[in-house]
Amino acid sequence: MAYLVNDPNDFTDELIDGFVAANSGIVRRVPGGVARAQKSATPAVAIVTGGGSGHYPAFGGLVGHGLADGAAMGNIFASPSAQQVYSVAKAVTRGKGVLLTYGNYAGDVLNFNRAQERLRDEGIDCRTVVVTDDISSASPTERSKRRGIAGDLTVFKCAAAAAGLGYDMDAVEQVAKRANDRTRSIGVAFSGCTLPGADTPLFSVPEGKMAVGMGIHGEPGISEVDMPTADELATLMVDQLWAEIPDGVSPEGAKLVVLVNGLGSVKYEELFVLYNRVSQLVEARGVTIIEPEVGELVTSFEMAGASLTFFWVDDELESLWAAPAYTPAFRKGSLHTDLSLESLDADELAGEQIPEASAVSREAAAKAVVVIEAIGAVIDANADELGRLDSIAGDGDHGIGMQRGAQAAVVEARRVAAAEAGVGTLLGLSGAAWADRAGGTSGALWGEILTTIGARLGDAEPPTAAALAEAVTQSAAAVTRYGGAKVGDKTLLDALVPFAEALTLAAASSPDSIRDAWAASVAPAEAAASATADLLPKVGRARPHLEKSLGTPDPGAVSMALIISAVANTL
Amino acid sequence: MAYLVNDPNDFTDELIDGFVAANSGIVRRVPGGVARAQKSATPAVAIVTGGGSGHYPAFGGLVGHGLADGAAMGNIFASPSAQQVYSVAKAVTRGKGVLLTYGNYAGDVLNFNRAQERLRDEGIDCRTVVVTDDISSASPTERSKRRGIAGDLTVFKCAAAAAGLGYDMDAVEQVAKRANDRTRSIGVAFSGCTLPGADTPLFSVPEGKMAVGMGIHGEPGISEVDMPTADELATLMVDQLWAEIPDGVSPEGAKLVVLVNGLGSVKYEELFVLYNRVSQLVEARGVTIIEPEVGELVTSFEMAGASLTFFWVDDELESLWAAPAYTPAFRKGSLHTDLSLESLDADELAGEQIPEASAVSREAAAKAVVVIEAIGAVIDANADELGRLDSIAGDGDHGIGMQRGAQAAVVEARRVAAAEAGVGTLLGLSGAAWADRAGGTSGALWGEILTTIGARLGDAEPPTAAALAEAVTQSAAAVTRYGGAKVGDKTLLDALVPFAEALTLAAASSPDSIRDAWAASVAPAEAAASATADLLPKVGRARPHLEKSLGTPDPGAVSMALIISAVANTL
Repeated sequence: MAYLVNDPNDFTDELIDGFVAANSGIVRRVPGGVARAQKSATPAVAIVTGGGSGHYPAFGGLVGHGLADGAAMGNIFASPSAQQVYSVAKAVTRGKGVLLTYGNYAGDVLNFNRAQERLRDEGIDCRTVVVTDDISSASPTERSKRRGIAGDLTVFKCAAAAAGLGYDMDAVEQVAKRANDRTRSIGVAFSGCTLPGADTPLFSVPEGKMAVGMGIHGEPGISEVDMPTADELATLMVDQLWAEIPDGVSPEGAKLVVLVNGLGSVKYEELFVLYNRVSQLVEARGVTIIEPEVGELVTSFEMAGASLTFFWVDDELESLWAAPAYTPAFRKGSLHTDLSLESLDADELAGEQIPEASAVSREAAAKAVVVIEAIGAVIDANADELGRLDSIAGDGDHGIGMQRGAQAAVVEARRVAAAEAGVGTLLGLSGAAWADRAGGTSGALWGEILTTIGARLGDAEPPTAAALAEAVTQSAAAVTRYGGAKVGDKTLLDALVPFAEALTLAAASSPDSIRDAWAASVAPAEAAASATADLLPKVGRARPHLEKSLGTPDPGAVSMALIISAVANTL
Repeated sequence: MAYLVNDPNDFTDELIDGFVAANSGIVRRVPGGVARAQKSATPAVAIVTGGGSGHYPAFGGLVGHGLADGAAMGNIFASPSAQQVYSVAKAVTRGKGVLLTYGNYAGDVLNFNRAQERLRDEGIDCRTVVVTDDISSASPTERSKRRGIAGDLTVFKCAAAAAGLGYDMDAVEQVAKRANDRTRSIGVAFSGCTLPGADTPLFSVPEGKMAVGMGIHGEPGISEVDMPTADELATLMVDQLWAEIPDGVSPEGAKLVVLVNGLGSVKYEELFVLYNRVSQLVEARGVTIIEPEVGELVTSFEMAGASLTFFWVDDELESLWAAPAYTPAFRKGSLHTDLSLESLDADELAGEQIPEASAVSREAAAKAVVVIEAIGAVIDANADELGRLDSIAGDGDHGIGMQRGAQAAVVEARRVAAAEAGVGTLLGLSGAAWADRAGGTSGALWGEILTTIGARLGDAEPPTAAALAEAVTQSAAAVTRYGGAKVGDKTLLDALVPFAEALTLAAASSPDSIRDAWAASVAPAEAAASATADLLPKVGRARPHLEKSLGTPDPGAVSMALIISAVANTL
């Protein structure tokens, strides 16, 4: 469990402050995460990574000379928001584009993709290479669905070394892709971890058992076996990775970077015992190990587990891997770089302008504040239950994530209403605040919903039932587009789409009354949310079939129905 | 607990092999531990550290450029033997003497002091600075009795940087002493750890409590309190260290190196949260923090705990602390040193010569083999019980340590008897093997006992009861001298001294029969061993009053009596 905690809600902020204070010569805080303290003199492709906190040294600990230029740091085990990724990328852009590279998790993909879109809209060349090294998380024919674990490091490191050598964007992207194509990992777990502020473990492994392939957030593995000896585990891991030698690599005479990673409470001495046998097995097969790493590279708090990574290098990747680096947590080779600080421009991200709005739209905005307050209240009242529902098949943070987002939206809605915003701007900025503060998948989607509705309503016309129905329908389309889910996949869409359809019908019969149209659509949304109990989740997780969630409604759909019902009472 | 284990008896060997394999560019294996892979071109004072394994990066992880030249690596939580320390020191001596520096624990002091004596006997200038930073382990007026914890790093680092700059032995020693004088730490623990192969924790902390001042082997702390918040803990630790500002240091305007150390399963994110408040508190008091470190510096497997270290630097210590270093686990600053490998002389430690012996002494040596085999057998049969006795007030390794030592002595006795050694040489070499293989305090003392007896008996004269009584009496004196204990301190001396006295009396009345004299002395030794149940331990532990051991005899005295009794049956 986590012992050194104040208010769990402040944990991520405080750890980032402490991390930056302890490493002020190497990293600096920027909106959304951290960036290198030193600015490169010459233009170069910027490498931006990120993810949930709780995996140190991933991701902030890997920012510095020869590695990432910046890291977006989300809440505990929750992806950073699109705004965070965007802000970090903007802070580190050095004129030759931005490569986003991170582990393949649904929430991260969603938020990094949104940030990429925004950067591209601004004319910045932005590319993405997601890391997919975990062989347990999908079959070889579905490599793109695999999660990223300790192999993150090989991809980030080689991409960054290439950027440091002045490679252009195409070349850096190719290096990162090739490094990912040549990296395979397998993890095992012996126990789970308990997040800051929680009383019970987020997940667990039965005593005396080992979960083969369990992910760094407790994602189910491929099997559960009796605890092996260290040597037996080494054999198991090497055999599994040997069955996955990348296309085009011949093991005979090959050079291999080997990483042995500890998840948290399997300690260094044990990792060395494991590496001892791994290195013997690998060398017995005629492969030369170069520049291995044994230690804690991607952790999950005090989770007891370990992973083995094989990175099959060619000559170019070998020299990129071997290049010097100097970050808070990863230092390698001899640096001849001047590490002295160069002064940096302060926060260059301009504040937004509140556009002028019509009187009717400002009136609607005042009403929208009440609506958003009601959303905040209903989420507050149900946060524990939403967390409980989410813990059955997910990571249990839906309640706290929704709460964080809704509270941020309330604060922002009040602020922009006082600045005389129209309803469109108010919903847009409130949605952005929600997504930024909540992080994770649900944060990104709720940000999208509010922003889309706001864009449709605008700051001029009075909202009508028809316009609102159209806006809600558009928001469902936007969620489908960003989230990659469809109705029946056990997500919030299962409540949102029936609601949008009911609202469209009701608006046709009650075009003058938002209140009546909305009220008529609550029951279909609630029924649809309950019906998700009969579904299996289809997206958003690398292991699609989580039977244990059968019989439990989807927490995202439930919170959607709760909000729809609460809003009805305010109209 | 430890998960990645083969035979627990092989754990230390395997971890050292794996560690060296993973860091072959930086360290190499030498008899007794590890040494820097690179040899310095110019003569310099060699810095040698060491201690029990299980504290990585202490101690092998701190060997490399700008830090230690070598580390003697003992078994899990057991000091290295004198032979190990000696071997490592010999391997790294570079012509300007050897500074031994390590944490202040009885077993380490014993073994490092013996090694120092041997090095000095060979004309090598050898000095010692023990680290005593743990303020919880003795009062300010008894600073020399304090244990060494994470403050090890500041002392090793500054001494090594000074050696690297070409300081002579006097100057390096002074730097190490000054660094130790200016370093203070306080640790807390939330849970214990379970050693490789063990089923139950070596020690524990009640759920929801924090042990203030608990040591890295579970040594009792100064109080047990309810779990505080991270901020409350920061305040507690800073206040305690503030009450211990070293003489001659004025905090106003001072420069302070701050270390936040995690013991194993209190993870990086939590350590950063703690550091965040620590740095605020320190800076609010007008002190400037320079080059802090937050991470795992001295661990205890998966023990949940943390420590805070203040190192009050002057200008010279500041620059020594800031100097570059490059070791497996500690890398700092920009290195302009050529890290290419220079070929090293292979093991330079010559094998011993077996001196010629008289026929009667060779006969006695054959008898001694039987005696030592009987010792091995009785220890084997009682190892579990000895471990249980030791776990009540100690670290539970007395059984396994004695077993390891006695087995090594048996192997060595057989080998040298076959090489026609006399009884004196046989006992001397068997004692050295015991001490080398067992490590720890009991290993050093049993090595001393056998070596002293062997020296008195020699390889010429037939052993008589009188000579043996004199030899045993001398061995008790040697143990007193090396161990710093006396009768009544609840150690093996409580059995050995009454035995020596009884044997002296019995030899006077039965001068011709070793068998009779010995048999007459068994009962007094057994009675004295049992009587240690009424005593409290006085030495060998930094916290002298371990009431919980009352009612339990001392495991060292018990094993002494068992051996005395077993030997009687072989004579």
